[in-house]
Amino acid sequence: MYSTENITAEELENLRYPIGKYDRTLPTTEASLRNAIDAIAELPGNLRATVVTLSDEQLDTPYRPGGWSLRQTIHHIADSHMNAFIRMKLALTEENPTIKPYEESLWANLPDAAGDIETSLNLLDALHERWVLLLDNLNPEKWKRTFNHPESGITPLDMAAHLYSWHGKHHLTQIQNLRDRMDW
Amino acid sequence: MYSTENITAEELENLRYPIGKYDRTLPTTEASLRNAIDAIAELPGNLRATVVTLSDEQLDTPYRPGGWSLRQTIHHIADSHMNAFIRMKLALTEENPTIKPYEESLWANLPDAAGDIETSLNLLDALHERWVLLLDNLNPEKWKRTFNHPESGITPLDMAAHLYSWHGKHHLTQIQNLRDRMDW
Amino acid sequence: MYSTENITAEELENLRYPIGKYDRTLPTTEASLRNAIDAIAELPGNLRATVVTLSDEQLDTPYRPGGWSLRQTIHHIADSHMNAFIRMKLALTEENPTIKPYEESLWANLPDAAGDIETSLNLLDALHERWVLLLDNLNPEKWKRTFNHPESGITPLDMAAHLYSWHGKHHLTQIQNLRDRMDW
Amino acid sequence: MYSTENITAEELENLRYPIGKYDRTLPTTEASLRNAIDAIAELPGNLRATVVTLSDEQLDTPYRPGGWSLRQTIHHIADSHMNAFIRMKLALTEENPTIKPYEESLWANLPDAAGDIETSLNLLDALHERWVLLLDNLNPEKWKRTFNHPESGITPLDMAAHLYSWHGKHHLTQIQNLRDRMDW
Repeated sequence: MYSTENITAEELENLRYPIGKYDRTLPTTEASLRNAIDAIAELPGNLRATVVTLSDEQLDTPYRPGGWSLRQTIHHIADSHMNAFIRMKLALTEENPTIKPYEESLWANLPDAAGDIETSLNLLDALHERWVLLLDNLNPEKWKRTFNHPESGITPLDMAAHLYSWHGKHHLTQIQNLRDRMDW
Repeated sequence: MYSTENITAEELENLRYPIGKYDRTLPTTEASLRNAIDAIAELPGNLRATVVTLSDEQLDTPYRPGGWSLRQTIHHIADSHMNAFIRMKLALTEENPTIKPYEESLWANLPDAAGDIETSLNLLDALHERWVLLLDNLNPEKWKRTFNHPESGITPLDMAAHLYSWHGKHHLTQIQNLRDRMDW
Repeated sequence: MYSTENITAEELENLRYPIGKYDRTLPTTEASLRNAIDAIAELPGNLRATVVTLSDEQLDTPYRPGGWSLRQTIHHIADSHMNAFIRMKLALTEENPTIKPYEESLWANLPDAAGDIETSLNLLDALHERWVLLLDNLNPEKWKRTFNHPESGITPLDMAAHLYSWHGKHHLTQIQNLRDRMDW
Repeated sequence: MYSTENITAEELENLRYPIGKYDRTLPTTEASLRNAIDAIAELPGNLRATVVTLSDEQLDTPYRPGGWSLRQTIHHIADSHMNAFIRMKLALTEENPTIKPYEESLWANLPDAAGDIETSLNLLDALHERWVLLLDNLNPEKWKRTFNHPESGITPLDMAAHLYSWHGKHHLTQIQNLRDRMDW
């Protein structure tokens, strides 16, 4: 049985960042880039396999006390990765464009974030397929192109690929950990 | 047989805008809004039915002399409607946000716009499903929320719904007209 | 408003067979076969476009007095076409195999025929894609291969292609006609 | 580097049955049935995650010397599970119906088994969703209903659920093992 009483700040941080925060200082290598693209490719299938047996009630459970429900998390991944795909295409077609951030916590409470998860699972299948086709065709020069995030700063595409590889696993692990804790 | 010799500027304009340009001055009514949402809902199926019998060679044919190939057009619809979905969610969560335009003609030449159309057809199925769920849950006050397009100006959501209803039909008709002219 | 009172037997027959019954005596030509394959290819998109705007309540309405609901009809199309795909592959790999019929009215009342229509729409997209790939690669000799249906008799593949082309339109028109009568 | 020279019969058997053969004598419990349904639900996502990064050349590699290519294996899973879904529905609507087997090795060489794997991955997503909805709604009495396989004999539905849970993992592990051996 899973109790949320008397949870410490450290425990909460571990629930929130189960694979740690994204480390912007890690070096990019050819191998790390290949791993990042592969992780982006594999995320939709792994996510589907992880959530497909869950009931509506389970999907509406927060992944941590005070956190998003699994359903919101799944729709958020689709929202976030559509934005990421667009940012990377902006970087490839303009000179260091300043991209438009979005208020992810407000988006997670819009009506479409309460819908059937199948929709966002299907969206992720298709979106990541196009995304990987794009990334598989970048040369070293293109990987160094950048977009400017008003808060996070200038981001080269290779760093963005690592970031979103991390981002998919980050949320997937949040969900897997809840499944484990709840014995679902 | 379809010849592109001696095509007049007017004929070219008709190929390019087969249902006319979008008319920003048309009044919005409850019925017109319902029609716009329904058109957004029906676009992915109608597009799939229109292009599914086409060969790779046919898909790589420009819809008009000097225009995008059908393949580029299909991937463009997915790109455009992801951007539109994001703009409408920005309008719902921020005060008249200035959105980031994109260079659609450059995007149409990125590597992912040469991929299998099935990917973007599936993406559109899922994306429009979430989009319609969002639009179906807006009240009159929300429909008046706006985003600011740096070139087109301030756009309320009801106008955006009409615009993208038009946009889907616009490209679908370009494709249908090529099929008719070529007797495909 | 749509009233079912005082409906005549002939009117009921027209509701049931809106494009007529399948005519086994029609000759097969190269053109009729091409049309049949194209119709099989286009069915999933046309069906999706026709039903995507319908509410759950509308989907649970019978297409005619005493008939299946639209939801049952949609799941039936997926069931029927999976069986058809399998029968055609049996005919291509065995000598006039006797296929196993199924009780379609009992299948329409199994639990999975009450589920979300999106599932069967997606199934039809993928199934028809594989089916068309199979049919597009048959030579005239293969088209004459047969399966034996215990009730309907020996069926060559070219006749089966025409039958299922008809079958898809048959149910699609039932649904479209209800939409028209109800002004949905 | 992976060499197939001098492979022993035992090694070949291990490549072919990496999780062992299906054991018909294993007892069925409520827990084993839950696990079987969950495994059926999770198969499409796990399969997608396992094969999505593979190139066309890799997909056309046999999973073992003399065995099917990965591509044939993936299309076979879709073929097999469509047949299984149909057999289980026959058992639920007729009294111990004799089902129609199929020549799986001949089917694996039909033209549609050379197509894009995305099609069968999407088909499996949708098919397993409907299948799980069916299985989740069976009561103990229904689980004891049977179909008769002309060669394998009378098969109750609970045994069939275990069999196809095994079948999915069996082929998934064949594919995963090739990936490991080849260091893909």
